[in-house]
Amino acid sequence: MAARYQGVFPVAPTIFTEDGALDLDGQRRCLDFMIDAGSQGICIHANYSEQFALGDDERETLTRLTLEHVAGRVPVIVTTSHFSARICAERNRQAQALGAAMVMVMPPHHGATFRVSEAQIHVFFAEVAAGLRIPLMIQDAPASGTTLSVPFLVKLAREIDAVSYFKIETSGAASKLRELIALGGDAIEGPWDGEEGITLLADLDAGAKGAMTGGGYPDGIRRITDAHFAGRREEAIEQYERWLPLINYENRQSGFLTSKALLKAGGVIACDRPRAPWPGLHPQVHAGLLETARRLDPLVLRWGR
Amino acid sequence: MAARYQGVFPVAPTIFTEDGALDLDGQRRCLDFMIDAGSQGICIHANYSEQFALGDDERETLTRLTLEHVAGRVPVIVTTSHFSARICAERNRQAQALGAAMVMVMPPHHGATFRVSEAQIHVFFAEVAAGLRIPLMIQDAPASGTTLSVPFLVKLAREIDAVSYFKIETSGAASKLRELIALGGDAIEGPWDGEEGITLLADLDAGAKGAMTGGGYPDGIRRITDAHFAGRREEAIEQYERWLPLINYENRQSGFLTSKALLKAGGVIACDRPRAPWPGLHPQVHAGLLETARRLDPLVLRWGR
Repeated sequence: MAARYQGVFPVAPTIFTEDGALDLDGQRRCLDFMIDAGSQGICIHANYSEQFALGDDERETLTRLTLEHVAGRVPVIVTTSHFSARICAERNRQAQALGAAMVMVMPPHHGATFRVSEAQIHVFFAEVAAGLRIPLMIQDAPASGTTLSVPFLVKLAREIDAVSYFKIETSGAASKLRELIALGGDAIEGPWDGEEGITLLADLDAGAKGAMTGGGYPDGIRRITDAHFAGRREEAIEQYERWLPLINYENRQSGFLTSKALLKAGGVIACDRPRAPWPGLHPQVHAGLLETARRLDPLVLRWGR
Repeated sequence: MAARYQGVFPVAPTIFTEDGALDLDGQRRCLDFMIDAGSQGICIHANYSEQFALGDDERETLTRLTLEHVAGRVPVIVTTSHFSARICAERNRQAQALGAAMVMVMPPHHGATFRVSEAQIHVFFAEVAAGLRIPLMIQDAPASGTTLSVPFLVKLAREIDAVSYFKIETSGAASKLRELIALGGDAIEGPWDGEEGITLLADLDAGAKGAMTGGGYPDGIRRITDAHFAGRREEAIEQYERWLPLINYENRQSGFLTSKALLKAGGVIACDRPRAPWPGLHPQVHAGLLETARRLDPLVLRWGR
């Protein structure tokens, strides 16, 4: 079975103005850059997009804007996570109707302490996937505070049609991907990784077919994945070694503010601030990021100049 | 300085229909019961209200409904927590404009892993309290996954006018309340507890002036608090010992489904289900709750009959 989607699907950051409002023009320029830089798809409303700082009305505005502006140039994955199955299902139906290629959903959770059992997680995914003709990606990330075992993920993939893509970004991602592929076989249409690509090479070696990275330098990530998918593993390793300092800086220092800082430095957007109370980058972290990025000459630093 | 609010301010559960929609008639009857049962105020949109399973539009609908229907019979506290300071501030302004007596806010957090520093929490509370003429209660609960030290809470109380009430429901609540009162003095207008009253007697002894309990039996809780506030501590202890089996059952077995189960058993509402994927009460837990409650003859079991 051929996977419907494969490759580098970076997360679009959410662009704000200096006073914290949505910057819709900046958002469109960000999407244009991401496509020009070789994104094979784009994901919106991930945690990397600061989705937790958005109101429901803003999510909807950005979903519509993205799908209208991207207009089929690349497939768009819309994250629709919500604790309520009813609300997540409604978001899924709307994303599908607006032209999303896929939806991404975390297991239901709230704060540090509210969690549900595996049986209830199963009920949840069955309910939110009902009526979907597009695939659903389960996001297996530490932020959910929920352990999703490989046998349980395979069970969901086998029993719920839409559930077919898996973004594994928990600790030990490569081992989990390998186990998922071995146990799930054809039910696992899309074994993907995430977390800014910090484990990308090991995950590709384990069989990952997609990577959901940060949005700042898809051109760099593509050099690794294109080579690996084409069977040129030695070239993939060389490119991984070359880009790893920037990937590492993003993953461990500048986090989800990385792509916005690069987009602003490259003249793509006017403001790279997060929404309060998330702190902006310390000047030293910002300088370290730009120093690390400039050594690689990514498109982002030239696109708007 | 006299506190503006004191006493038992239970949390109103959110009432759903069998198919998971809001039950607005049931919600109004729930509020009427809570007032009849002696609530000295009512809090909405707490975690006990399943606020994490509501959409923004539903929150607003219920805020308006509650303030219109209660219509000043008792003061209403509206929980307005959101990660974004901008969105929480907007909710606060709206709650104040609609007639809320107070707003309650958790420190900003997302999922199991996204947290901000003390400095950013300070920035957050300053921003969300700006322009408030009504008091703001900080909810210090384990669900936020955020440690709020007593010196930090006192600093917030001293430096931000509206910040004056504190709902302490972390581990060691009584000791923390005692320390907060000792260190904060007049800046701590409302040292309150929560967590279904499971530590109520110790918290009252420590100086708590309010209790945010579950919504099912304010008449029982009042017997404890009224006696304690009137200086009849021995009577308060006797009433606490009498009601503790039900308080304990709610806190450790039936959780935030307790008040809805009692409201349905008493004919106040038609449906006591949570919103999916939260599981309904196991029949054995439901039976245990009713058995425990019936021994106390709370108003809730008679109100709708």
